[in-house]
Amino acid sequence: MVMFKEELAEKAAAVDALLERYLPEEKGYAKTIFSAMRYSVMAGGKRIRPLLMMETFRYFQGENEKLVEPFMTAIEMIHTYSLIHDDLPAVDNDDYRRGRLTSHKVYGEAMAILAGDALQSYAYEVAAAAAADAAPEDMPRMAQAMKVLTHKPGIYGMVGGQVVDVELTGKPIPEDVLHFIFELKTADMIEAAMMIGAILAGESQETVAQIEKAGLDIGMAFQIQDDILDETGDEAVLGKPVHSDEKNVKTTWVTAYGMEKAVQDVREYSDEAVRILRETGESRHLSNDFLFALIEHMVGRKR
Amino acid sequence: MVMFKEELAEKAAAVDALLERYLPEEKGYAKTIFSAMRYSVMAGGKRIRPLLMMETFRYFQGENEKLVEPFMTAIEMIHTYSLIHDDLPAVDNDDYRRGRLTSHKVYGEAMAILAGDALQSYAYEVAAAAAADAAPEDMPRMAQAMKVLTHKPGIYGMVGGQVVDVELTGKPIPEDVLHFIFELKTADMIEAAMMIGAILAGESQETVAQIEKAGLDIGMAFQIQDDILDETGDEAVLGKPVHSDEKNVKTTWVTAYGMEKAVQDVREYSDEAVRILRETGESRHLSNDFLFALIEHMVGRKR
Repeated sequence: MVMFKEELAEKAAAVDALLERYLPEEKGYAKTIFSAMRYSVMAGGKRIRPLLMMETFRYFQGENEKLVEPFMTAIEMIHTYSLIHDDLPAVDNDDYRRGRLTSHKVYGEAMAILAGDALQSYAYEVAAAAAADAAPEDMPRMAQAMKVLTHKPGIYGMVGGQVVDVELTGKPIPEDVLHFIFELKTADMIEAAMMIGAILAGESQETVAQIEKAGLDIGMAFQIQDDILDETGDEAVLGKPVHSDEKNVKTTWVTAYGMEKAVQDVREYSDEAVRILRETGESRHLSNDFLFALIEHMVGRKR
Repeated sequence: MVMFKEELAEKAAAVDALLERYLPEEKGYAKTIFSAMRYSVMAGGKRIRPLLMMETFRYFQGENEKLVEPFMTAIEMIHTYSLIHDDLPAVDNDDYRRGRLTSHKVYGEAMAILAGDALQSYAYEVAAAAAADAAPEDMPRMAQAMKVLTHKPGIYGMVGGQVVDVELTGKPIPEDVLHFIFELKTADMIEAAMMIGAILAGESQETVAQIEKAGLDIGMAFQIQDDILDETGDEAVLGKPVHSDEKNVKTTWVTAYGMEKAVQDVREYSDEAVRILRETGESRHLSNDFLFALIEHMVGRKR
């Protein structure tokens, strides 16, 4: 499938250009922070969350792509802020991410803390400005999208998962807690991306709830696949040392359930996600081949 | 004016109760973060921002106070997150605030970073949920309030000011940069509080712009007064060691302009704010004695 890889590269480049457009100009008294924001946002992310958002929007025949763009920007900035703070010396203490020095290695610890804060706040600023300036008929869906954008990365979502992950670093993790961490830390942001795509396309609460479930399944498959790659992958592919997530005792899906079950779980979760997605669109003959290929790519069946 | 002090204490206690109502319950896998959020939010803040918001709303004869409450909660949580991150070892490295141990001294550095992140994200979550669930006729003003709530604490506001402040720690600060820091780091949050009060009361863009200017003046007076107190106050009043803001070379309004001009500037900025506020309400005979007393209290004329 050479076509998919080319299309993916093209679409990811379009997201890069979108992010460039929204990033603040590096000027004025506070320009160091603008530079630090850009450094991490443009550090070669795969743009999976904004792509999932846009492609879900397209699957549901969303029309005005201008509504989605600020939310695509926002979710990537939220993802980036979480990585900057994850990498800090007081948290995971990582010097490299995607083969590049982490924010605090380049800008110092204080500025890396502020760069994370700045990206979180700017993400919400970009989305809230678009919501406030929306046409009256778009306002309810923009407000619903904003609600999801603030909920899923928050204390009952990504941050909550990160807290438990940090607290259990170096300790064995019980299975129920491992599920909790995967669901909150990884799946919630995938859910948010897809739900916002569906909401902005004008889908019903019922369909959005189904998309939330599909997002959860994709998120689980994606994170389990990450654990599998950490066990089997090579450094060049991952951009970080193999086993870098295994300082001290590190419970992963593979150490908890074994490789065979991990591989099977990736398949089951992703099959279920695809089934739900197809079901929501069946009666209306919806399609988006790229979206389904992207999901297969994320869970490692298509490279 | 014994009456004012009693009224202030009563109203601040009502804000405390409001915050208690919104703070997440300390249960579940991630309960450490809920505990850390509560520890800092309930650490005895003066609640100046939520009070200014509510009293500005009342001055403009706002009717449905339920609209304001989530934004009062949000702005106090944003203020608190900024204090937690300010106090971190990599930033100001303060062990005490308001006479209590800072977050990282109690919960450790990683958890303090996450507590700040959590408070920022939860602040936006509380406000965005209220905006999404608002009645259709309230939606535009809720969206405008959300826009201000995400803009003023952000990179062109509070975070931007904090960045410049951190970069210049221990170095002499030119006068234009000192103004920039005061405006962004302190005044922007005061502006946000008062603007949101006016917006939610249904005021026009023109009036909101005047309130923004009044908020700027109050913020400047408030921050200059803080520098004066740091020079003259005693530890019991301030809850932190006198001169604690003066590690190394520390440029303050007092060191830059002298005590006499600093006192005069507090008077001029606050007089101008009061003049603007009275002017916006004059033709409609608006009044709110408590609001004006609160402003005088903030700038140190009334204790």
